Amino acid sequence: MSGRIEKDSLGSKEVPDSVYYGIQTLRAVENFPITGVPVHPQLIIALAHVKKAAAQANTELKRLPHQIAEAIIQAAKEVSGGQWSDQFIVDSIQGGAGTSINMNMNEVLANRALEIMGFAKGDYFHCSPNNHVNMSQSTNDAIPTALRIAAYTLTEQLLVTMREVQQGFARKQSQFDDVIKVGRTHLQDAVPIRMGQEFGAYAKVLDRDIGRISRAAEGLLSVNMGATAVGTGLNATVEYIHLVVKHMADDLQIGLYSAADLVDATQNTDAYTELSASLKVCAVNLSKICNDIRLMASGPKVGLNELLLPPRQPGSSIMPGKVNPVMAEVVNQVAFQVMGNDHTICMASEAGQFELNVMGPVIAFNLLQSLQVMQRALDVFNRFALEGMEANRVRCQAYVDQSFGIVTALNPHLGYDVAAQLVKEAMATGMTIKELILERNLLTPEEMNEILDPVQMTTPGIAGERLLKDQL
Amino acid sequence: MSGRIEKDSLGSKEVPDSVYYGIQTLRAVENFPITGVPVHPQLIIALAHVKKAAAQANTELKRLPHQIAEAIIQAAKEVSGGQWSDQFIVDSIQGGAGTSINMNMNEVLANRALEIMGFAKGDYFHCSPNNHVNMSQSTNDAIPTALRIAAYTLTEQLLVTMREVQQGFARKQSQFDDVIKVGRTHLQDAVPIRMGQEFGAYAKVLDRDIGRISRAAEGLLSVNMGATAVGTGLNATVEYIHLVVKHMADDLQIGLYSAADLVDATQNTDAYTELSASLKVCAVNLSKICNDIRLMASGPKVGLNELLLPPRQPGSSIMPGKVNPVMAEVVNQVAFQVMGNDHTICMASEAGQFELNVMGPVIAFNLLQSLQVMQRALDVFNRFALEGMEANRVRCQAYVDQSFGIVTALNPHLGYDVAAQLVKEAMATGMTIKELILERNLLTPEEMNEILDPVQMTTPGIAGERLLKDQL
Amino acid sequence: MSGRIEKDSLGSKEVPDSVYYGIQTLRAVENFPITGVPVHPQLIIALAHVKKAAAQANTELKRLPHQIAEAIIQAAKEVSGGQWSDQFIVDSIQGGAGTSINMNMNEVLANRALEIMGFAKGDYFHCSPNNHVNMSQSTNDAIPTALRIAAYTLTEQLLVTMREVQQGFARKQSQFDDVIKVGRTHLQDAVPIRMGQEFGAYAKVLDRDIGRISRAAEGLLSVNMGATAVGTGLNATVEYIHLVVKHMADDLQIGLYSAADLVDATQNTDAYTELSASLKVCAVNLSKICNDIRLMASGPKVGLNELLLPPRQPGSSIMPGKVNPVMAEVVNQVAFQVMGNDHTICMASEAGQFELNVMGPVIAFNLLQSLQVMQRALDVFNRFALEGMEANRVRCQAYVDQSFGIVTALNPHLGYDVAAQLVKEAMATGMTIKELILERNLLTPEEMNEILDPVQMTTPGIAGERLLKDQL
Amino acid sequence: MSGRIEKDSLGSKEVPDSVYYGIQTLRAVENFPITGVPVHPQLIIALAHVKKAAAQANTELKRLPHQIAEAIIQAAKEVSGGQWSDQFIVDSIQGGAGTSINMNMNEVLANRALEIMGFAKGDYFHCSPNNHVNMSQSTNDAIPTALRIAAYTLTEQLLVTMREVQQGFARKQSQFDDVIKVGRTHLQDAVPIRMGQEFGAYAKVLDRDIGRISRAAEGLLSVNMGATAVGTGLNATVEYIHLVVKHMADDLQIGLYSAADLVDATQNTDAYTELSASLKVCAVNLSKICNDIRLMASGPKVGLNELLLPPRQPGSSIMPGKVNPVMAEVVNQVAFQVMGNDHTICMASEAGQFELNVMGPVIAFNLLQSLQVMQRALDVFNRFALEGMEANRVRCQAYVDQSFGIVTALNPHLGYDVAAQLVKEAMATGMTIKELILERNLLTPEEMNEILDPVQMTTPGIAGERLLKDQL
Repeated sequence: MSGRIEKDSLGSKEVPDSVYYGIQTLRAVENFPITGVPVHPQLIIALAHVKKAAAQANTELKRLPHQIAEAIIQAAKEVSGGQWSDQFIVDSIQGGAGTSINMNMNEVLANRALEIMGFAKGDYFHCSPNNHVNMSQSTNDAIPTALRIAAYTLTEQLLVTMREVQQGFARKQSQFDDVIKVGRTHLQDAVPIRMGQEFGAYAKVLDRDIGRISRAAEGLLSVNMGATAVGTGLNATVEYIHLVVKHMADDLQIGLYSAADLVDATQNTDAYTELSASLKVCAVNLSKICNDIRLMASGPKVGLNELLLPPRQPGSSIMPGKVNPVMAEVVNQVAFQVMGNDHTICMASEAGQFELNVMGPVIAFNLLQSLQVMQRALDVFNRFALEGMEANRVRCQAYVDQSFGIVTALNPHLGYDVAAQLVKEAMATGMTIKELILERNLLTPEEMNEILDPVQMTTPGIAGERLLKDQL
Repeated sequence: MSGRIEKDSLGSKEVPDSVYYGIQTLRAVENFPITGVPVHPQLIIALAHVKKAAAQANTELKRLPHQIAEAIIQAAKEVSGGQWSDQFIVDSIQGGAGTSINMNMNEVLANRALEIMGFAKGDYFHCSPNNHVNMSQSTNDAIPTALRIAAYTLTEQLLVTMREVQQGFARKQSQFDDVIKVGRTHLQDAVPIRMGQEFGAYAKVLDRDIGRISRAAEGLLSVNMGATAVGTGLNATVEYIHLVVKHMADDLQIGLYSAADLVDATQNTDAYTELSASLKVCAVNLSKICNDIRLMASGPKVGLNELLLPPRQPGSSIMPGKVNPVMAEVVNQVAFQVMGNDHTICMASEAGQFELNVMGPVIAFNLLQSLQVMQRALDVFNRFALEGMEANRVRCQAYVDQSFGIVTALNPHLGYDVAAQLVKEAMATGMTIKELILERNLLTPEEMNEILDPVQMTTPGIAGERLLKDQL
Repeated sequence: MSGRIEKDSLGSKEVPDSVYYGIQTLRAVENFPITGVPVHPQLIIALAHVKKAAAQANTELKRLPHQIAEAIIQAAKEVSGGQWSDQFIVDSIQGGAGTSINMNMNEVLANRALEIMGFAKGDYFHCSPNNHVNMSQSTNDAIPTALRIAAYTLTEQLLVTMREVQQGFARKQSQFDDVIKVGRTHLQDAVPIRMGQEFGAYAKVLDRDIGRISRAAEGLLSVNMGATAVGTGLNATVEYIHLVVKHMADDLQIGLYSAADLVDATQNTDAYTELSASLKVCAVNLSKICNDIRLMASGPKVGLNELLLPPRQPGSSIMPGKVNPVMAEVVNQVAFQVMGNDHTICMASEAGQFELNVMGPVIAFNLLQSLQVMQRALDVFNRFALEGMEANRVRCQAYVDQSFGIVTALNPHLGYDVAAQLVKEAMATGMTIKELILERNLLTPEEMNEILDPVQMTTPGIAGERLLKDQL
Repeated sequence: MSGRIEKDSLGSKEVPDSVYYGIQTLRAVENFPITGVPVHPQLIIALAHVKKAAAQANTELKRLPHQIAEAIIQAAKEVSGGQWSDQFIVDSIQGGAGTSINMNMNEVLANRALEIMGFAKGDYFHCSPNNHVNMSQSTNDAIPTALRIAAYTLTEQLLVTMREVQQGFARKQSQFDDVIKVGRTHLQDAVPIRMGQEFGAYAKVLDRDIGRISRAAEGLLSVNMGATAVGTGLNATVEYIHLVVKHMADDLQIGLYSAADLVDATQNTDAYTELSASLKVCAVNLSKICNDIRLMASGPKVGLNELLLPPRQPGSSIMPGKVNPVMAEVVNQVAFQVMGNDHTICMASEAGQFELNVMGPVIAFNLLQSLQVMQRALDVFNRFALEGMEANRVRCQAYVDQSFGIVTALNPHLGYDVAAQLVKEAMATGMTIKELILERNLLTPEEMNEILDPVQMTTPGIAGERLLKDQL
């Protein structure tokens, strides 16, 4: 395999002719063989958009010759369209605050641009990774801007899925609206509730999560292009800053804007911690919901067995009824992953110093992973578990009949003492509260059913209040 | 010490005559001797407000006899005013989802009400902790409502202090606006920046933190009074729910409102995780800022020594100049505390099951601590460190003169090659860039000073651009 | 209230005559009003031991006049005996790496020593906080040494309680050895297990935790007395280092020894992170165990109801059978606290710089709290929950009979196809597997009972293997 | 592309003829498209060893026909040798406690064994994934066993690298033994220290980390093969358990042994949390060390510039001297990653329920990643940063001469008052302490140099003590 010789300030290296990356990419590969996971494709795509916008702005401002700009723009379009993805080989976790992925991109675009213009790869006089592709930029503005775009894009995708899941829970709220079941506090039997109310609570908290994540994502729209090295914008003109952001916003159809204070926007990473925190809050909620679902689906014989999940894979060859709640389990695990990732992101954010946070790569790795795994896990959870869930209505009703929680509704009608006595006798005899009421003629069947009406017992007010007024 | 005998469903206990709490408080003290730290005073105050509002609503709805209600209301006012604080003896971390602190309050108010009405303590026929003080309530609605009020109140206090600190940073931004210094990325010398810009970045991120925490606090205003045991509101009327929330809101002058979905509001704890997450995001930022301050104040002789902190306590008996940055150090530590607390809160929140999260006490313990320690640490940091900080202008300017970062501003005027050559010679000779420029007559002193003007070098655009146009 | 005037390098302050602390304590109180929680009493006691040993060593080496040494030693004994505890008023979280608590101690001991010698408080010529009490010491060696002693002491106490709990679980392992119940994986019914085996697994993991925590505590025995400011031991003689450690070890009867490398021992805080990590690993296990217990105790009617917990406080006034698992809940919460504390400790430890970690106070606050709350929670859990736990044997057996998991034991005897057919028919008819076997004469009652013998089904091997051999 | 039809209890699917995996793998791919990262290769290799050992044991016990066993064993050898790695396509994060990766392996081995025996893929009558490859196993024992082996193997590799790094620090300890520099506490100038002592402290803490990680890894050697579903070993004979573990241990040359209590070993995951905790403790230490290194390497002109790092990639095109400490930065990031991963692992471990922890996959994902990224980051850090580090001796000495910390060594010779006066004059005049001593004839140059001897000043005892004795 023949190669070209590339040079930088530290020396020279032979680069295979076939590849578009160059010497600095090779150095990065040698320096940072850490996770084995390349930089997230969405960050590559976003960075290509950044490079394209910079080339556009630079050529409009007569700083970059038109022909070179056109070639760079075409190369960047190819990359943002998904082409050349195998050329981005630097590791997700890298030192240097993202210099390596920035240079990987600069080198790939420069060599592809050279090819487009009919020059040989490596002929950086005609199009240089640093002088042309990276013109008016610094790793310290290009990479944070790309990360914000990538995170925003993945957040948008996540929110679409979250809304589907939220709607899924809302649909179950309706579907299970008439399923009366035993409420539980401390895992102990309590007063009745309708399963629809429980799923309604899941829908509500997810709705707030959608709001939280949406609001957090807005912080990503403020970008620091033109900050150059430390945020002061040395050697970047105001016109350039305006143009490059405008081109990105137009191109991506995202409401990006130039940060009011580029120094602030360059050194602070709170946009990431804020977004990650909102994901973590959601992850906590999702884990609680999935824990509930797994508890309700426990059984089939000697668990609660109130909820039936669609089978997704054989549980056991011997027990045909066995359905492991694998889709809920995967959401739990993703929730833990997101919570751990948030921890990493916070540690990395806290480690910023002065004008820059050099821990950007590990932030990007974890933030983009969190967004992606949440979106994917929720998508399959929605399609493979939530949509097909069914209430075990017979079991739920039997539980209500067995449990003592319903006596609370009888208090206003029979008095506390009689109600308490009923519980004692039920415990002693094994009879249900309902059976005892009827046996003792404490209420007519009609009265009893009115008081123990599922909706009345599970909404504010005195169940069977009408009967009390009749008595007056 | 003589005592009265109190009974509950598990048996009886002798309670000292002098105390206002009763048997269930004693059980809690026996069961939960965990942290040694009693429940936060702000939670006690808030819970007294809840009890007062419930008594008001219940008597207006003719459920609670007027005389008893008046006595409970007076007792609750005394407690919310800070009286009887030594009667709240249950531990911050307790099992039972807050039942123990709820009963501690119910017992104290009942006995104090009895005393007000002229009855003996323990004469619960005339005013019962359960039947009268706790009327229409459950631990599951009274305690979360009180926690929300307490957290909201402490957040308001925190925000006042945060705004002072934010203003403090903004004042330093002005004060240090003309202090040119070396910017640093990767802890390596970079292009110049003004110290005012750095403090402006601190002010900006704190401003966002204020916004984040404010928004998060809004979630606390939605309370679940009337939820009773599981959120369905069984035996709580709609009128009561309306009245009790109205009384609390009027009383506290806080925009509390009844949650749209009481089931949701009873089982979900995202209001706490959201608030804690916003505190954590702020803590990360504060820690980064304090790290910067400690680095800038390092020295006095062989550190950076760019920033002078007011001495707060003797550092060393032998070195008169030694000032340890103790106020920044305490903020760092508080930041770590808040981050750890957030972890605990998330774990506890994730552990919710079905209709209730029984881990409320540990959430309250950590959330209220986070709010309080942040407020207090920021307050002393502001008064004892931020206000008196001074820039070491001489040192900062000397550093700018020594460092090579300013050559970046010369590039457009002298060309990259000449600039690079200057750096090499400066390194070889020990001369400064400025000295070399003048020695070689590369620029006139006036031109040099215009290009290396602190403001021009630290704002977007080409420093000394006018000179370039003159050349044309 | 009259007062004395005390001076330090920053100025002077009036100190009330009645108190033993002095000007630097007052500065600390002003500077650090953070948590409201004073430094942990065990740390005060340990620090008094450090001061006593230093006075002993210094007087033996003729550096400290005998009379002053005797007075300091007596004062230190009083403090380590619990006297003067109200004089230690500085906050747990403080800047300055513990200088404030060190000076609080130095001042109290100096003033008490002055009193003992018949001098007035504040007459520091005759006994100075710095020159005499703190002789040959630095905050940077005295405080870490005291923290190690305090942590070691609390760990010893924790281990005593852990062994009791571990024995408690082992007793339940015996007591529940013959309680056959349904095993559960994924919360789904699986093959049978004995409840004793489950409690045996709890005992085993706690046994490993005891080992882990014990081993981690050994790291605390290496102390850095004599390190002085940065670990180099400047101005501390080798004889002193030997003597001071010997006196502490003799005094406390703990195997303390001088760290092999005092620079290492002064800057590194891995002894704390290691101990905290071992507590966290244990907390994770405890939380899992308590989750299991709460699940097994769920009910009473429509939960699993396999385990009966001693009632500790009234759950509900209406449902006599309701027992909330409050002792397990408090352990869960303590586990979350310990996990969050570990996070804080790690953040603080990571923030060490060069020769010292100045975040010691927040490490001490969290580490000593973790040790204490774990010990206390486990103690009450043991006495109030574990000792009185009972298996619901009837329920457990009924579950085994109902569930299908036992067919797995039948496979070798009846063949997979017949076993699977039995499950299908059981599901269709509602009959139990046992009933079907007998109805169809698939096995004699004796054979069935031998195969489904609880011990055989729950130990390695083929249940009823003897019958297979008979068939040959 | 033609395909075969495979069936399971949920239905049938077409599987491409070319692939070795089957229907259950396809279900898993559909169910769990989460991270995009396949199961760690080391876990695949370990699982192949498990399958091989099970086949060996089963055939020796006459349960598995010899021909089938031989084919499975050959297939497993191929997989453990790295072949067929593209056939393991299920995602790292999956529901079902690892059933999917277990079935992926079972299917690949079955089909490859069929091929070896001359049968068609999918002809499971002759070799079935469940009946033959998975014989006597359950996901619940095979997967935890494989995870332990994989984690142990990666830990061994990590320890090799850690020992190299530890030796690297020890070599620097020697190399920098005579480099006197200013010690720093609170980032403030303190008494002198030798750079070798600092690197010695790094070597020491790493040495303890090696011990901690080694001890933690021992917990992995206890495996639960034969536990079958819940740890009771139903249908697994004692002979089998003995044989399968023996074969694995022989094969891998690792001291694996059968857990004393298989129920314990199946449900508890403390071996993983313990190992992860030890990695986290190490990560905290590594991050602190790298922070120190980055601080010492700060500059080059206006930072500390005490340490020179080998350049690894161009920092800035304009400043030839700029070297970003990229290798230290990557270790910092990896430390944060490991700390976050530990959080995830703890959350997942805490979520175990009853006889199984179904969150195993996310534990495996994070644990194996932590081990790998630490090993890789340390390896490149060692080769590319540590080996080539050089002290900036001139700078370090100049700092010592400038700083005031050395006066502490003069105290015993000149008295505290004179020493303090020297500091004041040095501050006022800008002269160094040494210059002042000589100018005032306070000491002869020889005396001064003896007292300020680097070794004497940085080891326990009175520097220049001989001179004091001469005076007597």
